[in-house]
Amino acid sequence: MYQYVHGGDIYSDPSLNKNKDLLDYSANINPLGIPVGVRHALKDAVAGCVNYPDPFCRELRDRLSRCFSLPAEMVYCGNGAADVLFRIITALKPKRTLVLAPTFADYEKAALAAGSKMDYFTLKEDNEFAVTPEILKSITKRTELVVLCNPNNPTGKLMNKELLLKVLRHCEELHIPLLVDECFMDFVQDQDNYTLIDQLAGHPGLIILKAFTKIFAIPGVRLGFCLTSDTVMMDKLYACGQDWNVSVLAQAAGVAALDEKDFLVETRELIAIEKAYLITQLRLIGLKVFESAANYILIKTLHNYPWPQKLKRHHIMIRDCSNYRGLSPGYYRIAVKTRRDNRKLVKIMKELVKHDFFNYIN
Amino acid sequence: MYQYVHGGDIYSDPSLNKNKDLLDYSANINPLGIPVGVRHALKDAVAGCVNYPDPFCRELRDRLSRCFSLPAEMVYCGNGAADVLFRIITALKPKRTLVLAPTFADYEKAALAAGSKMDYFTLKEDNEFAVTPEILKSITKRTELVVLCNPNNPTGKLMNKELLLKVLRHCEELHIPLLVDECFMDFVQDQDNYTLIDQLAGHPGLIILKAFTKIFAIPGVRLGFCLTSDTVMMDKLYACGQDWNVSVLAQAAGVAALDEKDFLVETRELIAIEKAYLITQLRLIGLKVFESAANYILIKTLHNYPWPQKLKRHHIMIRDCSNYRGLSPGYYRIAVKTRRDNRKLVKIMKELVKHDFFNYIN
Repeated sequence: MYQYVHGGDIYSDPSLNKNKDLLDYSANINPLGIPVGVRHALKDAVAGCVNYPDPFCRELRDRLSRCFSLPAEMVYCGNGAADVLFRIITALKPKRTLVLAPTFADYEKAALAAGSKMDYFTLKEDNEFAVTPEILKSITKRTELVVLCNPNNPTGKLMNKELLLKVLRHCEELHIPLLVDECFMDFVQDQDNYTLIDQLAGHPGLIILKAFTKIFAIPGVRLGFCLTSDTVMMDKLYACGQDWNVSVLAQAAGVAALDEKDFLVETRELIAIEKAYLITQLRLIGLKVFESAANYILIKTLHNYPWPQKLKRHHIMIRDCSNYRGLSPGYYRIAVKTRRDNRKLVKIMKELVKHDFFNYIN
Repeated sequence: MYQYVHGGDIYSDPSLNKNKDLLDYSANINPLGIPVGVRHALKDAVAGCVNYPDPFCRELRDRLSRCFSLPAEMVYCGNGAADVLFRIITALKPKRTLVLAPTFADYEKAALAAGSKMDYFTLKEDNEFAVTPEILKSITKRTELVVLCNPNNPTGKLMNKELLLKVLRHCEELHIPLLVDECFMDFVQDQDNYTLIDQLAGHPGLIILKAFTKIFAIPGVRLGFCLTSDTVMMDKLYACGQDWNVSVLAQAAGVAALDEKDFLVETRELIAIEKAYLITQLRLIGLKVFESAANYILIKTLHNYPWPQKLKRHHIMIRDCSNYRGLSPGYYRIAVKTRRDNRKLVKIMKELVKHDFFNYIN
């Protein structure tokens, strides 16, 4: 039977779903919640749902194009970044796809669904899971698609731009499309030093994936997009799926979200402070915590301690990362939330380590 | 450049989009509008959009399963029926697909996107576009998928159940999946005599496509589903696309919609009365009007009279059907709306025929 492998499934257990005190640390959502303007826009858009959505998301793409100073023809919107990802890979039909390990599972799911074989560039823990120049050797004439995630999920590790540009040039020489998932780049403080958006115009092989989901805390609405200067690719994205993938509600939410400039600044400040707090506190407990540029952190702990089950009793969900290729039991991903929530999480984890951990140490 | 070929695009022309008097006869939406309970459910669901949607739509599928007296394992929900359609065809990967002509364009779009070749069973106007037993000869050993639309779009013609059962048996003997799109069946008065839902349990090759879009007037929300007893197929539907295709909003709208029993009865009564009115009135004007079991009617008129442009001046959109395979210039599809709107449409069409038509008669 089909297995769901991600975080955020609060519905699988009715005791969690109906629980108002639930703290979902398993999904990487902005802890500030949905901006007020976006909530209002969603409610106001309900009446307009009597019409089909704009199949070309004209207003939203126009607004996005102004945000990124790119022509609207370079913007494609979808039913969440995951929908856009599947469209891109369906359109490209790669025979061999190179992905990182560990990384977000859906690049592989989408590639396999399109009939691709997989190659993996394995990231090393000794090296804090950094992508190294070795990756250039893994991109060969047989590769038909390279997918990077920057910052990477679940490690939170950024790729430096110099190496990214080398990968881009290398892919270009071999005529290999390069898909860079920048869904979590919105949480990065100095993102201009890392994003490849400035490279789109001259590089038609480059596709950048983005989402409204995480930064505007609307995973339930479904809205993502990609940017590329490849017009042939753009046509294929429209042709390889339905016309009305972005709901009237999602389009309205997206337009309203782009007005929320202060919200973005506030978010980045909060995430920086709270991430530092969480990292410090969890290290004080004695857990191994990796540095992260995103709004989540990867930890490594006792391989046999059942963190998810133990925390569930306290109405807390975290992401077990043992099903990520390249990781193993003992790795967990924890979202960064508000101080009140983070304090509760730290307190409970501390108590568990103090009073329960020794039962599991061999 | 990619061409949108359907009705309901009120956004392409800003003068229409912003016009509150716009009458969109080009999309086949319930003229009663969104039920109050569904509108409330959508607004109430906004706060819950801070969470990812349930990837398995557990509550909605449970409710649907009770409606149809089928196990929830036989229900798959998607981002509109069009999303479900693309998933089905992506999962089946047919090499040769048989569709009707004319019919809804996206069966072909989805089949072509999956790499299929197309075969067409051409419906004859002399025969009121009815599917005849001849179709059995068109389904051969080389066919890998048969798609029917019942009632058919844009003709509104129903297939009789006896013939449907013959097609089902024939497909089964040849191990060919049969997809029946019953998206407009909800508007049919005596639908129990036509639907194949009662055949699902014993026929794993049968897949029935349904939507909330038309009957509950929520095309902007995106919610459709399919029913099949093929559990392997069900697993493939989950595997061949993203996990979160049905938004929190759509799931909430669907659950609320299933409580609207009176709304359905009221809708069918209104459609029956108004369809009869429209057919009579348009025939009185002298137009050829085909009988229809659905909430839209197909008309045939002067091939060179520019109806869409003429009606647009009166803020009315109708569906030019000349781009349907098997039709040609002069065919139009008109939705059935309320008496007030229908009276306006008839009045304007009558005046155009009286005062403007003769300019176009050779």
